[in-house]
Amino acid sequence: MAKEIKPYVVGIDIGGTNTVFGIVDARGNVLASSSIKTQRHQQFDDYIAELHEELSKLIEENCGIERVKGIGVGAPNANYYTGNIEHAANLPWKGIIPFAEVMSNKFGVPVALTNDANAAAIGEMTYGAARGMKDFIMITLGTGVGSGIVSNGHLIYGHDGFAGELGHVIVRRENGRQCGCGSKGCLETYTSATGVARTAREFLETRSNEDSMLRKIALDTITSKDVFDAAQDGDQIAKDVFAFTGQVLGEALADFVKFSSPEAIILFGGLAKSGDLLMKPLRQSMEDNLMPIFKGKVKLLFSEMKDADAAILGASALAWESK
Amino acid sequence: MAKEIKPYVVGIDIGGTNTVFGIVDARGNVLASSSIKTQRHQQFDDYIAELHEELSKLIEENCGIERVKGIGVGAPNANYYTGNIEHAANLPWKGIIPFAEVMSNKFGVPVALTNDANAAAIGEMTYGAARGMKDFIMITLGTGVGSGIVSNGHLIYGHDGFAGELGHVIVRRENGRQCGCGSKGCLETYTSATGVARTAREFLETRSNEDSMLRKIALDTITSKDVFDAAQDGDQIAKDVFAFTGQVLGEALADFVKFSSPEAIILFGGLAKSGDLLMKPLRQSMEDNLMPIFKGKVKLLFSEMKDADAAILGASALAWESK
Repeated sequence: MAKEIKPYVVGIDIGGTNTVFGIVDARGNVLASSSIKTQRHQQFDDYIAELHEELSKLIEENCGIERVKGIGVGAPNANYYTGNIEHAANLPWKGIIPFAEVMSNKFGVPVALTNDANAAAIGEMTYGAARGMKDFIMITLGTGVGSGIVSNGHLIYGHDGFAGELGHVIVRRENGRQCGCGSKGCLETYTSATGVARTAREFLETRSNEDSMLRKIALDTITSKDVFDAAQDGDQIAKDVFAFTGQVLGEALADFVKFSSPEAIILFGGLAKSGDLLMKPLRQSMEDNLMPIFKGKVKLLFSEMKDADAAILGASALAWESK
Repeated sequence: MAKEIKPYVVGIDIGGTNTVFGIVDARGNVLASSSIKTQRHQQFDDYIAELHEELSKLIEENCGIERVKGIGVGAPNANYYTGNIEHAANLPWKGIIPFAEVMSNKFGVPVALTNDANAAAIGEMTYGAARGMKDFIMITLGTGVGSGIVSNGHLIYGHDGFAGELGHVIVRRENGRQCGCGSKGCLETYTSATGVARTAREFLETRSNEDSMLRKIALDTITSKDVFDAAQDGDQIAKDVFAFTGQVLGEALADFVKFSSPEAIILFGGLAKSGDLLMKPLRQSMEDNLMPIFKGKVKLLFSEMKDADAAILGASALAWESK
């Protein structure tokens, strides 16, 4: 009686600090995972040698390479079409890195690559809150704001592989905040974790007569977590920071709906866990700003991926799609 | 020797005033066309009876129904998924009209329906400037501003069939102009033909000391054509109206690129023919507002569909796709 061979995929998430990787089954269970430091090697060849060694070990100990159907990679500035990482500002290797090709040669399996927000969207569609959905938008609220857009069951990569930069849509054309991308007024400067801290600093400065728990913290060191804690304790300025963040994000989401008319918008990342503090003003603002034909139709959901595994799962989901 | 049977499709464009229809071959030649008045009949049944009679005559005289592969329809508030026209404000028939079903029963061929901007996008992909393109955005600059978005070779209809309302993306959040959709600051209120006339009235009022040819025309009756003529004659206020229109449209297009990273943006409609008056500031503004990774990559093109036939061609293109 032949035993059925259970297939696996590998997910790799390359962050500025850590590169995490794991082996995943078709139901989204992470069999085993490990990590290396992204910044240890200035030379890409040295980095890839260490990654190859550690990942080979993990595969060997758990399932064997013959059961690995493919490898999916989430990385900044990753180009899905070419498999390259192109000029990533926060990675040590400069220029254009042919990541997929090098990995595929080393392991002898297909390797697919995209940015982390796109990977999160595919992960959500494969294992999470977007199962069965053909049209949704994933918004990741972290240090920055990322997005992955799925339309008619397919991720929108665009002509060059770089579609879905919704964190850099301009939400304030006048006196907009300076963004790292070079533009002013990008969504990311308002609704990322750093954007929330920035709003708190602004509010504390412009409302200098008003008392706030946040005044105990040096202005330059306030984090979104500090603002969240203060708001939980009833601090008015902190609560207003979340109200403003929800307002701005809701306005932006209403515009995104006009583009692709999604069934749902799925939020991921630390800020998405702020509960009603963010969600109440966000829902209200989105609905207020939707055109009549879209009102009450778009679900606002949270990611169903477990935090610890989300990056690996998202990247791994890409591998199920690869040929 | 069997003669090859050349297939045809029918395109119908339902406008507020006229319903135009024609028979089209695979290369985009309009074999014959005709029209009826959309508003003549308050009852949908009477309208459809007249359309059936006139279209049947046209088909009979030209190719015969057996060579018609399908019928494509462009109409306001048309839902591609259901084949219905839903609550169209400028058509005489209220509520939900099962247009595709009724037509398909009458003619015995497949009937597909979408809004006019989506039809224009499919037309452009089938016969026009977007042949061979898999990722582009069509922007129609008419009385309103419409859009059709093609990603990976497919039109984005969204979850409910109403995707692509880019004319209603908010481009001015503060003191934005009131739009017919209920929101303030929609792109359409600035870059449609009526938006251009509105800008001219604003400029004439706020720059009341400045001379302009447009002052010979009663403020309420100024049209975009008047502004174009004055700008052609060197009128500074009129030229500034186009510069402002290009600026606003360029900012918006740069944001659209962040969404779907198209190979090209294709402009259609009267305003698109304003030449350098509009195009120079538009190109400049779009490039200035693009993120570094997109700069210099996105083509700005004009529709290649002949004006007289564009509506019929766009609608007909939908029929080649129908099953």
